[in-house]
Amino acid sequence: MEFLVRQLNRMPADEESRRLREELRPRERQVARQLRDAGILRRLWRVPGTQHAIGLYEAEDATVLHDALSSLPMFPWLEIEIQPLAVHPQERGAPPGPAAGSGTAG
Amino acid sequence: MEFLVRQLNRMPADEESRRLREELRPRERQVARQLRDAGILRRLWRVPGTQHAIGLYEAEDATVLHDALSSLPMFPWLEIEIQPLAVHPQERGAPPGPAAGSGTAG
Amino acid sequence: MEFLVRQLNRMPADEESRRLREELRPRERQVARQLRDAGILRRLWRVPGTQHAIGLYEAEDATVLHDALSSLPMFPWLEIEIQPLAVHPQERGAPPGPAAGSGTAG
Amino acid sequence: MEFLVRQLNRMPADEESRRLREELRPRERQVARQLRDAGILRRLWRVPGTQHAIGLYEAEDATVLHDALSSLPMFPWLEIEIQPLAVHPQERGAPPGPAAGSGTAG
Amino acid sequence: MEFLVRQLNRMPADEESRRLREELRPRERQVARQLRDAGILRRLWRVPGTQHAIGLYEAEDATVLHDALSSLPMFPWLEIEIQPLAVHPQERGAPPGPAAGSGTAG
Amino acid sequence: MEFLVRQLNRMPADEESRRLREELRPRERQVARQLRDAGILRRLWRVPGTQHAIGLYEAEDATVLHDALSSLPMFPWLEIEIQPLAVHPQERGAPPGPAAGSGTAG
Amino acid sequence: MEFLVRQLNRMPADEESRRLREELRPRERQVARQLRDAGILRRLWRVPGTQHAIGLYEAEDATVLHDALSSLPMFPWLEIEIQPLAVHPQERGAPPGPAAGSGTAG
Amino acid sequence: MEFLVRQLNRMPADEESRRLREELRPRERQVARQLRDAGILRRLWRVPGTQHAIGLYEAEDATVLHDALSSLPMFPWLEIEIQPLAVHPQERGAPPGPAAGSGTAG
Amino acid sequence: MEFLVRQLNRMPADEESRRLREELRPRERQVARQLRDAGILRRLWRVPGTQHAIGLYEAEDATVLHDALSSLPMFPWLEIEIQPLAVHPQERGAPPGPAAGSGTAG
Amino acid sequence: MEFLVRQLNRMPADEESRRLREELRPRERQVARQLRDAGILRRLWRVPGTQHAIGLYEAEDATVLHDALSSLPMFPWLEIEIQPLAVHPQERGAPPGPAAGSGTAG
Repeated sequence: MEFLVRQLNRMPADEESRRLREELRPRERQVARQLRDAGILRRLWRVPGTQHAIGLYEAEDATVLHDALSSLPMFPWLEIEIQPLAVHPQERGAPPGPAAGSGTAG
Repeated sequence: MEFLVRQLNRMPADEESRRLREELRPRERQVARQLRDAGILRRLWRVPGTQHAIGLYEAEDATVLHDALSSLPMFPWLEIEIQPLAVHPQERGAPPGPAAGSGTAG
Repeated sequence: MEFLVRQLNRMPADEESRRLREELRPRERQVARQLRDAGILRRLWRVPGTQHAIGLYEAEDATVLHDALSSLPMFPWLEIEIQPLAVHPQERGAPPGPAAGSGTAG
Repeated sequence: MEFLVRQLNRMPADEESRRLREELRPRERQVARQLRDAGILRRLWRVPGTQHAIGLYEAEDATVLHDALSSLPMFPWLEIEIQPLAVHPQERGAPPGPAAGSGTAG
Repeated sequence: MEFLVRQLNRMPADEESRRLREELRPRERQVARQLRDAGILRRLWRVPGTQHAIGLYEAEDATVLHDALSSLPMFPWLEIEIQPLAVHPQERGAPPGPAAGSGTAG
Repeated sequence: MEFLVRQLNRMPADEESRRLREELRPRERQVARQLRDAGILRRLWRVPGTQHAIGLYEAEDATVLHDALSSLPMFPWLEIEIQPLAVHPQERGAPPGPAAGSGTAG
Repeated sequence: MEFLVRQLNRMPADEESRRLREELRPRERQVARQLRDAGILRRLWRVPGTQHAIGLYEAEDATVLHDALSSLPMFPWLEIEIQPLAVHPQERGAPPGPAAGSGTAG
Repeated sequence: MEFLVRQLNRMPADEESRRLREELRPRERQVARQLRDAGILRRLWRVPGTQHAIGLYEAEDATVLHDALSSLPMFPWLEIEIQPLAVHPQERGAPPGPAAGSGTAG
Repeated sequence: MEFLVRQLNRMPADEESRRLREELRPRERQVARQLRDAGILRRLWRVPGTQHAIGLYEAEDATVLHDALSSLPMFPWLEIEIQPLAVHPQERGAPPGPAAGSGTAG
Repeated sequence: MEFLVRQLNRMPADEESRRLREELRPRERQVARQLRDAGILRRLWRVPGTQHAIGLYEAEDATVLHDALSSLPMFPWLEIEIQPLAVHPQERGAPPGPAAGSGTAG
């Protein structure tokens, strides 16, 4: 099941927070990489003009998704909104191939 | 450039509107197919519990995107919100291959 | 997976709509009963002072939930908001018994 | 009478707050257990991607509910919204048995 | 238990609706009088500049309140929001007398 | 003239604020008592699950009401919203007696 | 006591409504003139780009103000929001003269 | 003085409205041209995915702007929001030349 | 040109801020007096129950108004919303006399 | 492609922040000048009564725009909202001249 996830970054703008974010970044990238490898994190976009992100996730259910998101080092500073997604009629029955995997219905 | 597009269906619930929607559906699917073939419409999801949809589009700019959306037969009944998307640092420099095309960073 | 579903009834107040709602009610109850028997609809509450309802649903994913909700005869007049639910840490590992089934953690 | 309670956790993200939350957790669980044993707290869900929770409570009236909620050690950091619930016509007259207690109408 | 009830009048402004409202008024007043006599409707105010009202109700629970509100002839045109009220610490233990009944703490 | 006043308590949750609130409480109660004796504060409710309150006030005009509210020791931490109230047609012409004073129209 | 009144014009845009508004205008102006002569309507502005207005009213209380506003022929189509106003400390004690009456503090 | 004007098109989606819009278009374009020639309408953008527009206007004051906007044939169907603009410090003192006139600070 | 200005006071409630506000008050009053003498600040009201104010200003354009508002010592703590005002048809052509100056249309 | 950018300044009001803003200003102006020279920043307005700004930008896509905005020294304190703009039908086919460049359609 897919989820559209809006990840608002609420870390403050002061110097100390910026240092903390720099410290967290390598581990953040590593966890994100693991989530991609596990097929949970499918896409990630930057909301332009902000430190926010929008992600496309795939997880068995909301509990698995919650566990994935709360494993992110930045999690305590993220305000997260989750939109569950249903398959669109136009994409039902799409052939299971690389194209389907890449988001086009074939 | 990618855009996340929320397509709220504001067609009323009465019987006449339902007939109209049925009439429009084949042409709607045909236009959607053309937009997919042109690489403009990349993914489309159903917002569960509604007639709304969320789409991932790719277009050169907002004018091209507007022309694509306004070619949909349902366009007069759609309330559309567009979120422009920037490439996320984690996906910059992703190798240009099928994986990149499918939204994972490799 | 559980979902909390807010079902806002947007049927107008005029006499004709009231008659239509009366006509739909037996079939509405029948479908609701089927959803309860299938274990999809777990609880349903009336939002006091309104014709709205709040339901607790259980479904494999958002597509299954969407199919269930859109099978309701009143669906074209419902404005539906879905909150996906994750298991709370306090209820993880609750013994699989009637108490757990009834929503208390044992 | 049942109430749907949205419990938004507004404790800040800094290290000191995280330590405080760890300290409060055992007592928090103990109070929650007492509320469950007293039949006041019926279900509790995690809002995925957040530290928020949604609870189903049963209390004689809003004053009893307030006393229960304000006994939670985390109460000073919770922003709470309460939705009073009325019995839905579909669940009126449900047979008083384990099934009714578990939220299905029989 | 007391409830603060915001009753937004959504009847349209056209001539036909105005006639309908005139027709409903005597029965509306009669039902309101019955609710007052039953001790359910305690106070009713006009929101100035509107056709809306704010009421102070007392009912055993939300189901009883819902039954009272939905018995109003204007109910199909009312958009109702209910705020459950808890006893304020300053008014707990107020002497049971006419003053308490009238809403002052003695 | 009556006013419905929503008093949102914005005092923070930290330990120092809690001590300050304890210190202010006796004086808060004393001022509230004076406002009740002066016929300005007519009722006060606790918004369940919060530290907020809703009050029914009676004052000659908004300036007198403002002076009363700003005399509360907690005033600097209150976010206050005021709803002016007009007499409802159902309560116009109510006999000037104890019943009218208690909020029922006789 | 002064009130700031936002008068949103919700009359539809169709031809019939436009004719009705034309018909109502002379009587609307006449009532407005009476309210000005009675010292109730002090100022009236057009919200640019709309058919809405913002008015400064003076009335003994909200009931008198409501009676004035509901006497406007356009009242059934107005969505009205009322902001009660208190005297600002800078204008308290302003000399009772034409200048004070005209809204400047002297 | 410059104003940023959001022009939301609220004309319904039905066939009759679409014909009306087609009829109004030539006159709409003509009035827009006149406003451009008069230096009042400086720029106009399409909000992508909608029939809305955002315009940059220049007018002596809000009354002149209102007269310009209400001269548009589509005005009865427009919901308009106006943001007054002040000169930014970076553009104060820009040399009076074609560049300044074109909105760049030189 | 007139502007309606909502001045939300966002200074915190702590003791230090209260001292600062006391310090700023004489200078605040002096600047306000200068703005009144210059005919820029026409009226100022207290929003009851708050430290906010609503002002009626007159300025040549938004840049002049901005310069006036930003000269207030409290400006850094004010969250300001500006509503540009157009002359209402009922007040157009009002005779230029003291009555017009005082906001009534003659 | 053009973008309308709302730049809300969230830097706090305290003395230290004011000093920091003063320090950042020369570099802020320098970066803004570079963005103007590069044709990215086309116009910038002050939202009157605030420290916010509205800008008209031109960039190849949202990623280029994000890079430009995040190069501003004030970026960590800005809350930015981006509205993508499509060419309006009235401005399509405008002759490529200084007038077009300056925002009028010729």
